[in-house]
Amino acid sequence: MTIGLDMSSVAATETAFARIAAVDGDIRAFVTTLPDSARAAARASDARRAAGASLGPLDGLPFAVKDNIAVAGLPTRCGTTAFDTPATADSTVVARLRAAGAVLIGTLNMHEGALGATTDNPFWGRCINPLKPRYTPGGSSGGSAAAVAAGMVPWTLGTDTMGSVRIPAAYCGLWALKPTRGRVPVTGLVHLSWTLDTIGPLARDAATLGAVLAAMSGPDAADPMSGVLQGDGTAPKTLVGLRFGVPDAAALTDCEPAVLDAFADFTSSLTAAGAVLVPTEVAGWSPGALRRAGLLISEVEGAEVLGAAVDGPGLSDDFRAMLDYGRRANAGRVARAYQQLQQLAIAFEAAIHGLTGIILPTAPQRAFAHDTPVPPGQADFTALANVAGAPAMTLPIIARDGGLPCAAQIIGPRQSDLSLVAIGQLMQGLPPIWQPDHKD
Amino acid sequence: MTIGLDMSSVAATETAFARIAAVDGDIRAFVTTLPDSARAAARASDARRAAGASLGPLDGLPFAVKDNIAVAGLPTRCGTTAFDTPATADSTVVARLRAAGAVLIGTLNMHEGALGATTDNPFWGRCINPLKPRYTPGGSSGGSAAAVAAGMVPWTLGTDTMGSVRIPAAYCGLWALKPTRGRVPVTGLVHLSWTLDTIGPLARDAATLGAVLAAMSGPDAADPMSGVLQGDGTAPKTLVGLRFGVPDAAALTDCEPAVLDAFADFTSSLTAAGAVLVPTEVAGWSPGALRRAGLLISEVEGAEVLGAAVDGPGLSDDFRAMLDYGRRANAGRVARAYQQLQQLAIAFEAAIHGLTGIILPTAPQRAFAHDTPVPPGQADFTALANVAGAPAMTLPIIARDGGLPCAAQIIGPRQSDLSLVAIGQLMQGLPPIWQPDHKD
Repeated sequence: MTIGLDMSSVAATETAFARIAAVDGDIRAFVTTLPDSARAAARASDARRAAGASLGPLDGLPFAVKDNIAVAGLPTRCGTTAFDTPATADSTVVARLRAAGAVLIGTLNMHEGALGATTDNPFWGRCINPLKPRYTPGGSSGGSAAAVAAGMVPWTLGTDTMGSVRIPAAYCGLWALKPTRGRVPVTGLVHLSWTLDTIGPLARDAATLGAVLAAMSGPDAADPMSGVLQGDGTAPKTLVGLRFGVPDAAALTDCEPAVLDAFADFTSSLTAAGAVLVPTEVAGWSPGALRRAGLLISEVEGAEVLGAAVDGPGLSDDFRAMLDYGRRANAGRVARAYQQLQQLAIAFEAAIHGLTGIILPTAPQRAFAHDTPVPPGQADFTALANVAGAPAMTLPIIARDGGLPCAAQIIGPRQSDLSLVAIGQLMQGLPPIWQPDHKD
Repeated sequence: MTIGLDMSSVAATETAFARIAAVDGDIRAFVTTLPDSARAAARASDARRAAGASLGPLDGLPFAVKDNIAVAGLPTRCGTTAFDTPATADSTVVARLRAAGAVLIGTLNMHEGALGATTDNPFWGRCINPLKPRYTPGGSSGGSAAAVAAGMVPWTLGTDTMGSVRIPAAYCGLWALKPTRGRVPVTGLVHLSWTLDTIGPLARDAATLGAVLAAMSGPDAADPMSGVLQGDGTAPKTLVGLRFGVPDAAALTDCEPAVLDAFADFTSSLTAAGAVLVPTEVAGWSPGALRRAGLLISEVEGAEVLGAAVDGPGLSDDFRAMLDYGRRANAGRVARAYQQLQQLAIAFEAAIHGLTGIILPTAPQRAFAHDTPVPPGQADFTALANVAGAPAMTLPIIARDGGLPCAAQIIGPRQSDLSLVAIGQLMQGLPPIWQPDHKD
């Protein structure tokens, strides 16, 4: 049974809790559940809908949020045990989603401090990919992906600093969107990197991403970056004639063969659907160097956000060491890292000019087993959009070997979020697109 | 006699050298002159033009560049005596301007290290405002403004980190443009701040700014930020109906009364010409806080650029102390400064949406006497465009008291440089515009 609006909100919510009870002992996607408030919200939604007063496409749908997004009354733990003071108010996104009728049922496991991509969390458990036992769901929003992929909730929120929404979506066969920087208010988010972080939705289809984005977006007086206007022109009604930039083969040499094959299948299907593919290069882009610059900035900004907590209890030694490295970094070296970001943001702006989007694999490999070495380049393709402040949507692609799905992302020009979602809906029926098919 | 293309290039060049000989002993705008190469270039230009093979509107016109822009065979001194190795190649802008036929006649005095706005240079002399003895021409491109205002050359190049092109243009009654970040290659510029620096022209009219910008712009393989496409739509043909954002009175409280009066005269003339003025606020903009963030970033990046030279000879104690402060800065504090820049850049993007430009005074006061305290807020209005990466043009406004001119700037959306120049040409005949009238 897939949770959706074809059932009552009470039924959807009870189904969610039942599924959590059944499977989350193994998966460990949830950190906290909120049965009382969720059931009350579900009853209120059902009353509204019965009265013909639905608040829109999210009214009554259960959801959950990564544990670095404030929920009133709960500590915002960020995947640590360092923080136990309950938040006094909802984050802006949670408040807006509740106001749209969505039913918050809990908070989700994540890679500690959002600084890593396996969600093998030392305090809240090793989160498991519902598609394959012992495999990572990716991260840092690993719980956000696992909860959706296991059918516990139809959609979740994660946060994406260098790929932390898109990578777990890719590993778990989901759709996800990292919005344009500034489009979604970050008030109530405990930042890893205020330069790079964006809150984004994960779901099983593109339409849900669009509904969640619409409910979350818009200016927020408490977030000075959320004032940018949200319009992005007319959403395309067909793929015919859309121009997508694609990297040359050299840019993809570090990819797993299955990812390359799936990417080729996907781009071929776009051509068959009438889209125009254009070889595109982002000048000066060195994925590894960019990732290292983004990591340093995350360490510096993360340490600044956590302040004295860096020296307190509740952090792992590894995470503490990274933050300590950041706060001790030489000023000139930090400035060089920001320079790399600025240069690449401008090069991206040039590269995407005249294109609907740039298409890349989401990650160079598929999900991997916990207890195997972590591939160093997981965020090589995703970090580009964070640095550019651009929106990027990931979608799941069938692997030729029939195994775990692969994924591609479409990075759009800034503010093209709604177009990206519309394009995703147009792509959803293409043959290479992987269709989530979780066990009911 | 005003130097222009109504005379031969040889005559223009000789006039330039004669004027330098006559007045620059007092003004101290020039650091180096290049009589041999300039005369050869002038003769070549005259031969081309006699053959009907002019290279365009700059062919034959003398110009000079700030001494932080590389000229082959000359040290790039940056207003210090720390650097005496001759540059092996022209900066990209100098090479492009020479290729357009312009005649380079020398390099110009500047505020030491480009970090300050009086051009009271301890090594190369106190540069004087040609409009008023003992007064500063502003800075850091003070020599670039003084050389034009004194009629030594028709146009020059400066660099603008937080206002260093526009402030001296304002103090000397000139027009100047800080281009969109990335539009003009910075290869061969010794940066103060790679985040904020832009090379821009100073001249006596808007059309010259446009010609110089066109010759300098465009991708340069050595500058990863110069790839952004340069088109900016159709230049307006009339001021009627153009929408300009103007600040509310509270944003201008720290301005000298003469500046407020001139600004009112200018905005009134725009309304009379059919433009629409819209009250506009850039959310979260605190000019003083932004200036301090920009200063810290300049100190950090400037120290990183100069490297070991910070500890060597040829810098003043004051400049060295600022760089030393920068290189010792705490990483988290540096990151906070970049955060302020990012937030404001996004707020600017929101504020300018739907506008042709935002109009502000260029500086809160007019030129002031050397030996009087330096007003702390000189860059309060100019730094906004550097942080936003947006183009800004300054134009001179008549002061009601008949004294030194005031100035206003128009900040455009990113990539609107050509539109700004076209708008400047439309504004050039408005009654409050100050007309340069130097002694011949």
